Amino acid sequence: MIYAEIVAGGKGTRMGNTELPKQFLMLGDKPVLIHTVERFLSSPRIDRIILCVPGEWKAYTSGLLDGYTEAGDKIDIVSGGEHRNATVLAGCRYIEENYGIEDDDIVLTHDAVRPFVTQRIIDENIETVKRYGAAVTAIGAVDTVAEVDEEGNLKNIPQRERMYQEQTPQTFRLGQMKSVIESFTDEEQRCFTDVCKAYLKLGIDVKVVEGERSNIKITTPLDMKIAEALAEEI
Amino acid sequence: MIYAEIVAGGKGTRMGNTELPKQFLMLGDKPVLIHTVERFLSSPRIDRIILCVPGEWKAYTSGLLDGYTEAGDKIDIVSGGEHRNATVLAGCRYIEENYGIEDDDIVLTHDAVRPFVTQRIIDENIETVKRYGAAVTAIGAVDTVAEVDEEGNLKNIPQRERMYQEQTPQTFRLGQMKSVIESFTDEEQRCFTDVCKAYLKLGIDVKVVEGERSNIKITTPLDMKIAEALAEEI
Repeated sequence: MIYAEIVAGGKGTRMGNTELPKQFLMLGDKPVLIHTVERFLSSPRIDRIILCVPGEWKAYTSGLLDGYTEAGDKIDIVSGGEHRNATVLAGCRYIEENYGIEDDDIVLTHDAVRPFVTQRIIDENIETVKRYGAAVTAIGAVDTVAEVDEEGNLKNIPQRERMYQEQTPQTFRLGQMKSVIESFTDEEQRCFTDVCKAYLKLGIDVKVVEGERSNIKITTPLDMKIAEALAEEI
Repeated sequence: MIYAEIVAGGKGTRMGNTELPKQFLMLGDKPVLIHTVERFLSSPRIDRIILCVPGEWKAYTSGLLDGYTEAGDKIDIVSGGEHRNATVLAGCRYIEENYGIEDDDIVLTHDAVRPFVTQRIIDENIETVKRYGAAVTAIGAVDTVAEVDEEGNLKNIPQRERMYQEQTPQTFRLGQMKSVIESFTDEEQRCFTDVCKAYLKLGIDVKVVEGERSNIKITTPLDMKIAEALAEEI
Protein backbone atom coordinates (compact mmCIF):
# COMPACT_ATOMS: atom_id res chain seq x y z
CA MET A 1 0.00 0.00 0.00
CA ILE A 2 1.07 3.55 -0.64
CA TYR A 3 -0.12 6.08 1.93
CA ALA A 4 -0.02 9.84 1.86
CA GLU A 5 0.23 11.30 5.36
CA ILE A 6 -0.82 14.91 5.15
CA VAL A 7 0.42 16.71 8.22
CA ALA A 8 -1.58 19.71 9.43
CA GLY A 9 -0.24 19.91 12.94
CA GLY A 10 0.34 23.65 13.23
CA LYS A 11 -2.10 25.98 14.91
CA GLY A 12 -1.19 28.82 12.56
CA THR A 13 0.06 31.14 15.27
CA ARG A 14 2.15 33.07 12.72
CA MET A 15 -0.81 34.12 10.55
CA GLY A 16 -1.61 37.31 12.47
CA ASN A 17 -5.19 38.25 13.20
CA THR A 18 -6.91 35.16 11.87
CA GLU A 19 -8.35 32.51 14.17
CA LEU A 20 -8.17 29.69 11.64
CA PRO A 21 -5.07 27.49 11.35
CA LYS A 22 -3.53 28.34 7.97
CA GLN A 23 -4.43 25.04 6.30
CA PHE A 24 -8.09 26.08 6.61
CA LEU A 25 -7.79 29.53 4.99
CA MET A 26 -9.50 30.01 1.65
CA LEU A 27 -7.27 29.93 -1.41
CA GLY A 28 -9.40 30.80 -4.42
CA ASP A 29 -12.63 28.82 -4.11
CA LYS A 30 -11.58 26.29 -1.46
CA PRO A 31 -9.43 25.90 1.67
CA VAL A 32 -5.68 25.32 1.35
CA LEU A 33 -6.04 21.83 2.82
CA ILE A 34 -8.55 20.81 0.18
CA HIS A 35 -6.17 21.86 -2.61
CA THR A 36 -3.48 19.71 -1.01
CA VAL A 37 -5.77 16.71 -0.51
CA GLU A 38 -6.93 16.91 -4.14
CA ARG A 39 -3.35 16.63 -5.39
CA PHE A 40 -3.06 13.26 -3.67
CA LEU A 41 -6.60 12.15 -4.51
CA SER A 42 -5.84 12.64 -8.18
CA SER A 43 -2.76 10.41 -8.05
CA PRO A 44 -3.76 6.86 -9.04
CA ARG A 45 -0.74 5.56 -7.12
CA ILE A 46 -1.90 6.72 -3.69
CA ASP A 47 -4.06 4.07 -1.99
CA ARG A 48 -5.08 5.96 1.14
CA ILE A 49 -4.73 9.42 2.61
CA ILE A 50 -4.12 9.83 6.34
CA LEU A 51 -4.94 13.38 7.33
CA CYS A 52 -3.32 14.37 10.62
CA VAL A 53 -4.89 17.46 12.19
CA PRO A 54 -5.03 18.90 15.72
CA GLY A 55 -7.64 16.88 17.66
CA GLU A 56 -9.93 19.86 18.18
CA TRP A 57 -10.14 20.38 14.39
CA LYS A 58 -11.12 16.83 13.40
CA ALA A 59 -14.86 17.49 13.15
CA TYR A 60 -14.28 20.72 11.24
CA THR A 61 -11.92 18.94 8.82
CA SER A 62 -14.44 16.17 8.31
CA GLY A 63 -17.05 18.75 7.39
CA LEU A 64 -14.70 20.35 4.85
CA LEU A 65 -13.98 17.01 3.19
CA ASP A 66 -17.70 16.28 2.92
CA GLY A 67 -18.33 19.70 1.44
CA TYR A 68 -15.49 19.90 -1.04
CA THR A 69 -14.43 16.38 -2.07
CA GLU A 70 -16.11 13.18 -3.19
CA ALA A 71 -13.59 10.66 -1.96
CA GLY A 72 -14.13 10.74 1.78
CA ASP A 73 -13.85 6.96 2.12
CA LYS A 74 -10.28 7.08 0.87
CA ILE A 75 -9.33 9.46 3.67
CA ASP A 76 -8.88 8.92 7.41
CA ILE A 77 -8.69 11.84 9.82
CA VAL A 78 -6.30 11.29 12.71
CA SER A 79 -5.34 13.46 15.72
CA GLY A 80 -1.81 14.82 15.45
CA GLY A 81 0.77 15.03 18.24
CA GLU A 82 2.56 17.86 19.99
CA HIS A 83 5.30 18.28 17.39
CA ARG A 84 5.86 17.26 13.81
CA ASN A 85 7.49 13.89 14.44
CA ALA A 86 4.85 12.98 17.03
CA THR A 87 2.21 13.80 14.44
CA VAL A 88 3.88 11.67 11.76
CA LEU A 89 4.17 8.85 14.29
CA ALA A 90 0.48 9.16 15.26
CA GLY A 91 -0.37 8.63 11.59
CA CYS A 92 1.86 5.52 11.44
CA ARG A 93 0.28 4.03 14.53
CA TYR A 94 -3.17 4.65 13.15
CA ILE A 95 -2.20 2.78 9.97
CA GLU A 96 -0.70 -0.09 11.99
CA GLU A 97 -3.82 -0.49 14.14
CA ASN A 98 -6.30 -0.22 11.30
CA TYR A 99 -4.59 -1.72 8.26
CA GLY A 100 -1.43 -3.39 9.57
CA ILE A 101 2.04 -2.63 8.21
CA GLU A 102 3.44 -4.67 5.29
CA ASP A 103 7.13 -4.74 4.31
CA ASP A 104 6.57 -2.91 1.06
CA ASP A 105 4.28 -0.19 2.42
CA ILE A 106 5.38 3.31 1.50
CA VAL A 107 4.37 6.58 3.13
CA LEU A 108 4.65 10.05 1.64
CA THR A 109 4.64 12.64 4.44
CA HIS A 110 3.49 16.03 3.20
CA ASP A 111 2.76 19.46 4.66
CA ALA A 112 -0.94 20.31 4.51
CA VAL A 113 0.11 23.87 3.70
CA ARG A 114 1.97 22.95 0.46
CA PRO A 115 -0.99 22.91 -1.92
CA PHE A 116 1.02 23.10 -5.16
CA VAL A 117 2.80 19.73 -5.05
CA THR A 118 2.79 18.17 -8.53
CA GLN A 119 2.08 14.67 -9.85
CA ARG A 120 5.67 14.55 -11.12
CA ILE A 121 6.99 15.16 -7.60
CA ILE A 122 4.64 12.53 -6.11
CA ASP A 123 5.64 9.95 -8.76
CA GLU A 124 9.36 10.58 -8.33
CA ASN A 125 9.07 10.30 -4.56
CA ILE A 126 7.52 6.86 -4.92
CA GLU A 127 10.02 5.68 -7.55
CA THR A 128 12.94 6.95 -5.48
CA VAL A 129 11.84 5.13 -2.35
CA LYS A 130 11.36 1.92 -4.31
CA ARG A 131 14.88 2.24 -5.67
CA TYR A 132 16.81 3.84 -2.81
CA GLY A 133 14.69 3.46 0.34
CA ALA A 134 14.07 7.10 1.35
CA ALA A 135 13.38 10.37 -0.48
CA VAL A 136 13.22 14.07 0.35
CA THR A 137 11.92 16.71 -2.02
CA ALA A 138 14.25 19.71 -2.22
CA ILE A 139 15.32 22.52 -4.53
CA GLY A 140 18.73 24.08 -5.00
CA ALA A 141 19.05 27.07 -2.66
CA VAL A 142 17.69 30.17 -4.37
CA ASP A 143 19.55 32.69 -2.23
CA THR A 144 23.10 32.42 -0.99
CA VAL A 145 22.89 30.52 2.29
CA ALA A 146 25.11 31.61 5.17
CA GLU A 147 25.82 30.33 8.64
CA VAL A 148 25.68 33.04 11.31
CA ASP A 149 27.25 32.82 14.77
CA GLU A 150 25.79 33.77 18.18
CA GLU A 151 27.03 37.36 17.83
CA GLY A 152 25.22 37.86 14.53
CA ASN A 153 28.39 37.71 12.41
CA LEU A 154 28.70 35.74 9.19
CA LYS A 155 30.56 32.56 10.00
CA ASN A 156 30.55 30.49 6.85
CA ILE A 157 29.11 30.62 3.34
CA PRO A 158 28.90 26.99 2.16
CA GLN A 159 29.42 26.18 -1.49
CA ARG A 160 26.14 27.19 -3.13
CA GLU A 161 25.79 24.17 -5.43
CA ARG A 162 25.62 21.84 -2.42
CA MET A 163 22.93 23.73 -0.53
CA TYR A 164 19.27 22.78 -0.90
CA GLN A 165 16.01 23.96 0.63
CA GLU A 166 13.88 21.06 1.81
CA GLN A 167 10.25 20.75 0.77
CA THR A 168 7.80 17.88 1.09
CA PRO A 169 6.84 15.12 0.33
CA GLN A 170 9.42 13.23 2.31
CA THR A 171 8.87 9.58 1.55
CA PHE A 172 9.88 6.43 3.38
CA ARG A 173 9.24 2.73 3.88
CA LEU A 174 6.46 2.90 6.45
CA GLY A 175 7.79 0.27 8.87
CA GLN A 176 11.31 1.65 8.75
CA MET A 177 10.15 5.21 9.31
CA LYS A 178 8.18 4.16 12.37
CA SER A 179 11.22 2.34 13.82
CA VAL A 180 13.51 5.27 13.05
CA ILE A 181 11.31 7.81 14.83
CA GLU A 182 10.66 5.45 17.75
CA SER A 183 14.38 4.90 18.23
CA PHE A 184 14.60 8.45 19.57
CA THR A 185 13.16 9.90 22.77
CA ASP A 186 10.29 12.34 22.55
CA GLU A 187 12.72 15.11 23.50
CA GLU A 188 15.07 14.16 20.64
CA GLN A 189 12.18 13.91 18.19
CA ARG A 190 11.14 17.40 19.17
CA CYS A 191 14.59 18.76 18.27
CA PHE A 192 14.64 17.24 14.78
CA THR A 193 13.33 19.51 12.07
CA ASP A 194 11.83 16.52 10.30
CA VAL A 195 12.08 12.76 9.84
CA CYS A 196 15.09 13.19 7.52
CA LYS A 197 17.20 14.46 10.38
CA ALA A 198 16.41 11.29 12.31
CA TYR A 199 17.48 9.19 9.29
CA LEU A 200 20.70 11.18 9.00
CA LYS A 201 21.46 10.66 12.71
CA LEU A 202 21.27 6.92 12.09
CA GLY A 203 23.39 7.14 8.94
CA ILE A 204 20.60 5.99 6.60
CA ASP A 205 20.76 7.49 3.09
CA VAL A 206 18.00 9.85 1.96
CA LYS A 207 17.93 10.66 -1.76
CA VAL A 208 16.93 14.08 -3.04
CA VAL A 209 14.00 14.41 -5.47
CA GLU A 210 13.98 17.71 -7.36
CA GLY A 211 11.10 19.87 -6.14
CA GLU A 212 9.62 23.00 -7.66
CA ARG A 213 9.90 26.66 -6.68
CA SER A 214 6.09 26.75 -6.80
CA ASN A 215 5.78 23.99 -4.18
CA ILE A 216 5.71 26.65 -1.45
CA LYS A 217 4.79 26.27 2.21
CA ILE A 218 2.16 28.75 3.35
CA THR A 219 3.29 30.07 6.72
CA THR A 220 2.78 33.85 6.70
CA PRO A 221 0.29 36.33 5.20
CA LEU A 222 2.93 37.06 2.52
CA ASP A 223 2.96 33.36 1.56
CA MET A 224 -0.82 33.49 1.27
CA LYS A 225 -0.53 36.43 -1.11
CA ILE A 226 2.02 34.52 -3.19
CA ALA A 227 -0.19 31.43 -3.12
CA GLU A 228 -3.09 33.46 -4.48
CA ALA A 229 -0.93 34.66 -7.37
CA LEU A 230 0.19 31.06 -8.02
CA ALA A 231 -3.32 29.64 -7.80
CA GLU A 232 -4.45 31.97 -10.57
CA GLU A 233 -1.65 30.77 -12.80
CA ILE A 234 -1.78 27.03 -12.20
CA MET B 1 30.04 60.22 1.31
CA ILE B 2 27.57 57.39 1.25
CA TYR B 3 27.16 55.68 -2.11
CA ALA B 4 24.59 53.15 -3.27
CA GLU B 5 26.01 50.86 -5.93
CA ILE B 6 23.07 49.26 -7.71
CA VAL B 7 24.29 46.21 -9.57
CA ALA B 8 22.41 45.17 -12.70
CA GLY B 9 25.03 42.92 -14.20
CA GLY B 10 22.89 39.99 -15.28
CA LYS B 11 21.67 39.54 -18.81
CA GLY B 12 18.46 37.88 -17.63
CA THR B 13 19.08 34.57 -19.38
CA ARG B 14 16.78 32.79 -16.92
CA MET B 15 13.68 34.84 -17.77
CA GLY B 16 12.50 32.63 -20.64
CA ASN B 17 11.22 34.15 -23.82
CA THR B 18 11.86 37.79 -23.07
CA GLU B 19 14.68 39.75 -24.66
CA LEU B 20 14.97 42.31 -21.88
CA PRO B 21 17.27 41.76 -18.89
CA LYS B 22 14.94 41.31 -15.91
CA GLN B 23 15.80 44.65 -14.27
CA PHE B 24 14.10 46.35 -17.24
CA LEU B 25 10.81 44.42 -17.11
CA MET B 26 7.71 46.41 -16.16
CA LEU B 27 6.47 45.98 -12.60
CA GLY B 28 3.21 47.88 -12.28
CA ASP B 29 3.70 51.24 -13.95
CA LYS B 30 7.50 51.29 -14.20
CA PRO B 31 10.51 49.04 -14.76
CA VAL B 32 11.94 47.00 -11.86
CA LEU B 33 15.15 49.03 -11.92
CA ILE B 34 13.28 52.30 -11.45
CA HIS B 35 11.51 50.94 -8.37
CA THR B 36 14.90 50.00 -6.95
CA VAL B 37 16.50 53.35 -7.79
CA GLU B 38 13.59 55.21 -6.19
CA ARG B 39 14.12 53.40 -2.90
CA PHE B 40 17.63 54.84 -2.70
CA LEU B 41 16.67 58.24 -4.11
CA SER B 42 14.17 58.65 -1.30
CA SER B 43 16.77 57.98 1.38
CA PRO B 44 18.19 61.33 2.60
CA ARG B 45 21.33 59.50 3.73
CA ILE B 46 22.43 58.35 0.27
CA ASP B 47 24.63 60.99 -1.42
CA ARG B 48 25.10 59.37 -4.82
CA ILE B 49 23.82 56.37 -6.75
CA ILE B 50 26.20 54.42 -8.98
CA LEU B 51 24.18 52.31 -11.37
CA CYS B 52 26.24 49.46 -12.86
CA VAL B 53 24.66 47.96 -16.00
CA PRO B 54 25.96 45.90 -18.93
CA GLY B 55 27.76 48.32 -21.27
CA GLU B 56 25.34 47.75 -24.14
CA TRP B 57 22.43 48.83 -21.91
CA LYS B 58 23.86 52.15 -20.72
CA ALA B 59 22.03 54.33 -23.23
CA TYR B 60 18.76 52.47 -22.65
CA THR B 61 19.15 52.86 -18.87
CA SER B 62 19.86 56.55 -19.26
CA GLY B 63 16.64 56.96 -21.25
CA LEU B 64 14.67 55.17 -18.52
CA LEU B 65 16.07 57.43 -15.80
CA ASP B 66 15.16 60.51 -17.84
CA GLY B 67 11.66 59.19 -18.41
CA TYR B 68 10.82 57.98 -14.93
CA THR B 69 12.87 59.93 -12.37
CA GLU B 70 13.74 63.53 -11.62
CA ALA B 71 17.08 63.07 -9.93
CA GLY B 72 19.33 62.12 -12.83
CA ASP B 73 22.20 64.30 -11.61
CA LYS B 74 22.45 62.22 -8.44
CA ILE B 75 23.01 59.09 -10.51
CA ASP B 76 25.98 57.87 -12.54
CA ILE B 77 25.66 55.01 -15.01
CA VAL B 78 28.72 52.78 -15.20
CA SER B 79 29.54 49.70 -17.32
CA GLY B 80 29.60 46.50 -15.25
CA GLY B 81 32.14 43.67 -15.47
CA GLU B 82 31.96 40.01 -16.42
CA HIS B 83 30.87 38.76 -13.01
CA ARG B 84 29.38 40.27 -9.88
CA ASN B 85 32.60 41.17 -8.10
CA ALA B 86 34.07 42.68 -11.29
CA THR B 87 30.94 44.81 -11.57
CA VAL B 88 31.15 45.97 -7.96
CA LEU B 89 34.84 46.77 -8.52
CA ALA B 90 34.07 48.72 -11.71
CA GLY B 91 31.73 50.90 -9.64
CA CYS B 92 34.45 51.47 -7.01
CA ARG B 93 36.99 52.47 -9.62
CA TYR B 94 34.54 54.88 -11.18
CA ILE B 95 34.02 56.51 -7.79
CA GLU B 96 37.78 56.69 -7.18
CA GLU B 97 38.45 58.33 -10.55
CA ASN B 98 35.58 60.80 -10.38
CA TYR B 99 35.15 61.65 -6.71
CA GLY B 100 38.17 60.19 -4.93
CA ILE B 101 37.91 57.80 -1.98
CA GLU B 102 37.83 59.16 1.59
CA ASP B 103 38.43 57.06 4.70
CA ASP B 104 34.86 57.34 5.92
CA ASP B 105 33.17 56.66 2.58
CA ILE B 106 30.55 53.93 2.74
CA VAL B 107 29.07 51.92 -0.12
CA LEU B 108 25.83 49.96 -0.10
CA THR B 109 25.93 47.32 -2.86
CA HIS B 110 22.45 46.29 -3.93
CA ASP B 111 20.84 44.04 -6.56
CA ALA B 112 18.95 46.03 -9.18
CA VAL B 113 16.36 43.25 -9.12
CA ARG B 114 15.45 43.69 -5.43
CA PRO B 115 12.94 46.53 -5.76
CA PHE B 116 11.34 46.14 -2.33
CA VAL B 117 14.26 47.12 -0.10
CA THR B 118 13.03 49.32 2.76
CA GLN B 119 14.28 52.53 4.37
CA ARG B 120 14.69 50.62 7.64
CA ILE B 121 17.04 48.15 5.93
CA ILE B 122 19.04 50.95 4.27
CA ASP B 123 19.37 52.86 7.56
CA GLU B 124 20.44 49.79 9.54
CA ASN B 125 23.03 48.89 6.90
CA ILE B 126 24.60 52.33 7.27
CA GLU B 127 24.48 52.29 11.09
CA THR B 128 25.95 48.80 11.22
CA VAL B 129 28.89 49.68 8.98
CA LYS B 130 29.61 52.78 11.06
CA ARG B 131 29.64 50.66 14.19
CA TYR B 132 31.09 47.32 13.02
CA GLY B 133 32.72 47.93 9.62
CA ALA B 134 30.73 45.62 7.32
CA ALA B 135 27.09 44.57 6.99
CA VAL B 136 25.08 41.97 5.08
CA THR B 137 21.30 41.92 4.92
CA ALA B 138 19.90 38.45 5.59
CA ILE B 139 16.82 36.67 6.91
CA GLY B 140 16.58 33.50 8.96
CA ALA B 141 16.21 30.53 6.58
CA VAL B 142 12.54 29.99 5.81
CA ASP B 143 12.86 26.35 4.75
CA THR B 144 15.02 23.72 6.34
CA VAL B 145 18.40 24.00 4.64
CA ALA B 146 20.29 20.82 3.80
CA GLU B 147 23.69 20.02 2.37
CA VAL B 148 23.56 17.44 -0.43
CA ASP B 149 26.52 15.33 -1.63
CA GLU B 150 27.64 14.56 -5.21
CA GLU B 151 25.39 11.48 -5.37
CA GLY B 152 22.29 13.50 -4.50
CA ASN B 153 22.02 12.17 -0.95
CA LEU B 154 21.33 14.33 2.08
CA LYS B 155 24.61 14.87 3.84
CA ASN B 156 23.94 17.31 6.63
CA ILE B 157 21.05 19.38 8.01
CA PRO B 158 22.66 22.28 9.87
CA GLN B 159 20.97 23.71 12.96
CA ARG B 160 18.14 25.79 11.55
CA GLU B 161 18.54 28.79 13.88
CA ARG B 162 22.05 29.43 12.54
CA MET B 163 21.14 29.39 8.84
CA TYR B 164 20.35 32.60 6.99
CA GLN B 165 19.49 33.51 3.42
CA GLU B 166 21.53 36.47 2.19
CA GLN B 167 19.87 39.45 0.59
CA THR B 168 21.20 42.88 -0.28
CA PRO B 169 22.26 45.60 0.52
CA GLN B 170 25.69 44.42 1.53
CA THR B 171 27.48 47.44 2.91
CA PHE B 172 31.15 48.20 3.40
CA ARG B 173 33.76 50.89 3.89
CA LEU B 174 34.44 51.79 0.27
CA GLY B 175 38.25 51.79 0.39
CA GLN B 176 38.41 48.55 2.34
CA MET B 177 35.98 46.82 0.00
CA LYS B 178 38.06 47.79 -3.02
CA SER B 179 41.24 46.46 -1.37
CA VAL B 180 39.51 43.25 -0.32
CA ILE B 181 38.24 42.47 -3.81
CA GLU B 182 41.56 43.46 -5.41
CA SER B 183 43.46 41.13 -3.09
CA PHE B 184 42.00 38.20 -5.03
CA THR B 185 42.67 37.15 -8.64
CA ASP B 186 39.94 37.56 -11.20
CA GLU B 187 39.45 33.78 -11.13
CA GLU B 188 39.00 33.80 -7.35
CA GLN B 189 36.61 36.75 -7.54
CA ARG B 190 34.55 34.83 -10.06
CA CYS B 191 34.16 31.91 -7.61
CA PHE B 192 32.91 34.06 -4.72
CA THR B 193 29.16 34.36 -4.52
CA ASP B 194 29.52 37.94 -3.34
CA VAL B 195 31.84 40.39 -1.60
CA CYS B 196 30.99 38.86 1.80
CA LYS B 197 32.72 35.64 0.83
CA ALA B 198 35.89 37.61 0.10
CA TYR B 199 35.66 39.28 3.52
CA LEU B 200 35.17 35.89 5.19
CA LYS B 201 38.22 34.47 3.38
CA LEU B 202 40.28 37.26 4.90
CA GLY B 203 38.73 36.75 8.35
CA ILE B 204 37.08 40.18 8.46
CA ASP B 205 33.80 40.27 10.43
CA VAL B 206 30.56 40.97 8.57
CA LYS B 207 27.54 41.75 10.77
CA VAL B 208 24.05 40.61 9.79
CA VAL B 209 21.27 43.18 9.37
CA GLU B 210 17.78 41.68 9.55
CA GLY B 211 16.17 41.78 6.08
CA GLU B 212 12.56 41.25 5.08
CA ARG B 213 10.81 38.33 3.40
CA SER B 214 9.43 40.87 0.92
CA ASN B 215 12.94 42.02 -0.13
CA ILE B 216 12.91 39.41 -2.89
CA LYS B 217 15.28 39.02 -5.84
CA ILE B 218 13.49 38.80 -9.17
CA THR B 219 15.19 36.03 -11.12
CA THR B 220 12.45 33.90 -12.71
CA PRO B 221 8.97 34.46 -14.19
CA LEU B 222 7.56 33.10 -10.89
CA ASP B 223 9.44 35.82 -8.98
CA MET B 224 7.94 38.40 -11.34
CA LYS B 225 4.47 37.09 -10.53
CA ILE B 226 5.23 37.32 -6.81
CA ALA B 227 6.64 40.82 -7.27
CA GLU B 228 3.42 41.91 -8.96
CA ALA B 229 1.42 40.64 -5.98
CA LEU B 230 3.79 42.46 -3.61
CA ALA B 231 3.74 45.69 -5.61
CA GLU B 232 -0.03 45.86 -5.26
CA GLU B 233 0.20 45.51 -1.51
CA ILE B 234 3.07 47.84 -0.69
